[in-house]
Amino acid sequence: MKADIDRIMAERDLDALVIFIGEEYSAALDYLVGRVRLTGGLAVKKRDVDPVLVVGGMETAEAAVSGLQVLAYSHYKLHELLEQNDNNGSYAYAAMLAAALAEQGVPAGKVGIYGTVEVNTVLDVLNRLRETHPDYTFVGDGGRTLFDRAAATKTADEIDRIKSVAARTSEVLQATWDFISGHKVDGETVVKADGGPLTIGDVKRFVRAALLERDLQEAGMIFAQGRDAGFPHSRGQADMPLKLGQSIVFDLFPYELGGGYHHDVTRTWCIGHASDEVQVIYKLVRDAYDIAIEHYTLGKPTHLMQEAVQDFLEAAGHATSRSEPGTEAGYVHSLGHGLGLKVHEAPYISHTRKDDAFAAGHVVTIEPGLYYPEKGYGVRYENTLYISEAGELVNITDFHDKLVLPLKGS
Amino acid sequence: MKADIDRIMAERDLDALVIFIGEEYSAALDYLVGRVRLTGGLAVKKRDVDPVLVVGGMETAEAAVSGLQVLAYSHYKLHELLEQNDNNGSYAYAAMLAAALAEQGVPAGKVGIYGTVEVNTVLDVLNRLRETHPDYTFVGDGGRTLFDRAAATKTADEIDRIKSVAARTSEVLQATWDFISGHKVDGETVVKADGGPLTIGDVKRFVRAALLERDLQEAGMIFAQGRDAGFPHSRGQADMPLKLGQSIVFDLFPYELGGGYHHDVTRTWCIGHASDEVQVIYKLVRDAYDIAIEHYTLGKPTHLMQEAVQDFLEAAGHATSRSEPGTEAGYVHSLGHGLGLKVHEAPYISHTRKDDAFAAGHVVTIEPGLYYPEKGYGVRYENTLYISEAGELVNITDFHDKLVLPLKGS
Repeated sequence: MKADIDRIMAERDLDALVIFIGEEYSAALDYLVGRVRLTGGLAVKKRDVDPVLVVGGMETAEAAVSGLQVLAYSHYKLHELLEQNDNNGSYAYAAMLAAALAEQGVPAGKVGIYGTVEVNTVLDVLNRLRETHPDYTFVGDGGRTLFDRAAATKTADEIDRIKSVAARTSEVLQATWDFISGHKVDGETVVKADGGPLTIGDVKRFVRAALLERDLQEAGMIFAQGRDAGFPHSRGQADMPLKLGQSIVFDLFPYELGGGYHHDVTRTWCIGHASDEVQVIYKLVRDAYDIAIEHYTLGKPTHLMQEAVQDFLEAAGHATSRSEPGTEAGYVHSLGHGLGLKVHEAPYISHTRKDDAFAAGHVVTIEPGLYYPEKGYGVRYENTLYISEAGELVNITDFHDKLVLPLKGS
Repeated sequence: MKADIDRIMAERDLDALVIFIGEEYSAALDYLVGRVRLTGGLAVKKRDVDPVLVVGGMETAEAAVSGLQVLAYSHYKLHELLEQNDNNGSYAYAAMLAAALAEQGVPAGKVGIYGTVEVNTVLDVLNRLRETHPDYTFVGDGGRTLFDRAAATKTADEIDRIKSVAARTSEVLQATWDFISGHKVDGETVVKADGGPLTIGDVKRFVRAALLERDLQEAGMIFAQGRDAGFPHSRGQADMPLKLGQSIVFDLFPYELGGGYHHDVTRTWCIGHASDEVQVIYKLVRDAYDIAIEHYTLGKPTHLMQEAVQDFLEAAGHATSRSEPGTEAGYVHSLGHGLGLKVHEAPYISHTRKDDAFAAGHVVTIEPGLYYPEKGYGVRYENTLYISEAGELVNITDFHDKLVLPLKGS
């Protein structure tokens, strides 16, 4: 939780942290200061003290929405710093950052650097500071980062926001099911009223509008059919017509409009009918999901849940990324991941990451799948779940698991 | 242009460049490899050689859309690297990056680091490489970056894409004008058919849907009324009702759906009527725009255009960020900026950045404004323009400059 940040900073001996702000949405910034729409600047936080925002004069009003102290570039006389540094923006910015740290009571020490920004610009500023201010040590953070650790356990408010996104996402899934179902068929191709094929692009367009109506936006949904469905992260080809009997992996992971909390759900659909083979595989994947749930216990290392699913699918004759690392056929990915302001965050449910254990406040996906691109199909089933204060694993994805989507328009 | 990248790498003595790929859209990645939807990995480019993509097994199909060589993590035995490094992801990733560089024929040398990603993770990887592979020098890039320099001059294809976004944006502007115009008034408040106030949130919702219908998305439009309009980067308050006679700054800078080329336009509207003061200020800002255009010459330093506008507005009695650095009243920002895959990129038309000169292929905004938040208003006028091969400055924003938006529903 956010309240853990100062404790984790102390554990890591961080005197301060700095978030570089760019034009892109930054989960770390949103987590630390709340939703603000800035295009540049710095958030500077001394340990055990509220952060301050350092922004251009045009963005002071927007920054003030945070309720935090806001300091304009002019407070640091950035224009004079530019002149003193022959208009070298990185040098001037470095001088401003050092001045801001000193003003916050951190004239030297260990400083964690964060933010989702163009990394080249940050490296340039830090290189300068290493020369001009050797009393600071600027550190990165990989693996389980400070924000990963804090954000992994959600507050009740955060879980409520994710539940709200989940409910709206399920409405969109149902609307999409009904939209497709309302079409007719011509041979093996799903067609529109004008006789032209209904394409994946058409479906995605419908989904985007349905999300937007509910103040959600997509981060790049997957709607992949046939062989493409056999590649877990293939997004699907916009100009591909929907065909009867093909497996479609529909993975929707939208977030609150403008950046915010996510929900993540996958269903596999076959329009009109499904082959015996896909039906068998789908049943196996659904069973794998249930096995995962059965292997949940509060406090248990998460990798054991993944390994239980791998045991099950390997016993059924399928390769996994444990039995055949790098395989592109079989069960090829991890079982799940945390989600919040990021669609992928801690904890991870993976056999290669053994440092997570289930804890109250976790919000995770559980998403087994089987992929056979050379046979022309893939199958995945995914819900989002949270762990209550009482330690129960609670599913928040309320949507049916029917495989065959009948065409009512035929 | 993209064809300039190798030359600029040579000028900077870069043996290779690496783009770290994250979940966020990266303009550098799009520019170098084209539109791919990856959530992680590396683009590694040796100078004078096409880049290769290093991605997880799940994303090889999506990466292949680029037409470039794709190498899966398994090619570098990432799972073994993880084991060898006690599951330290940054250490394993560092080893894989070094192996990829060596395989590309760069066993040592100067490597530029790029990408829009969580900077902390990159710093962690680079720190490791500094220890394990001291024969490399990894460098950042600030100010006018390699990609800024290359991307500043657009090809005909790029300009065509921007023109297409511009035409669709103008349709949305007109649709928004008509949407507001169709409402009635109750006292000073614009109201909907049900008598409730029409809010800024309602307008933004309309704009987002209208953009989406045209395969565009917004990067955070500004629709700011009254005092908020007086802060150039205030986004506007969603729950604020539209009021008669207030100045509204409507700055729309959408881009191709999923990430791509932008267009950027601002109009100032007053619903029903405008005060004499705002009319005078608006006329002055429109004149300032015309003066900027008059001061265009191919090859001329861009800052001279900004200074011509500052001369004009200062002579009319307004403070500028030149005459009063840090002022929040008057003409407080730069005159314009390049745009392409980024909404703000080179060249800049600013008195504090003197290293740009107008060149064929540039696409720029020209956007003078005057801001008086304490008087409760702000005014801006902005078009996007490009410089043709013949050196002409051509406006591509085709939308009227009427200030007063009449309510037809009254």
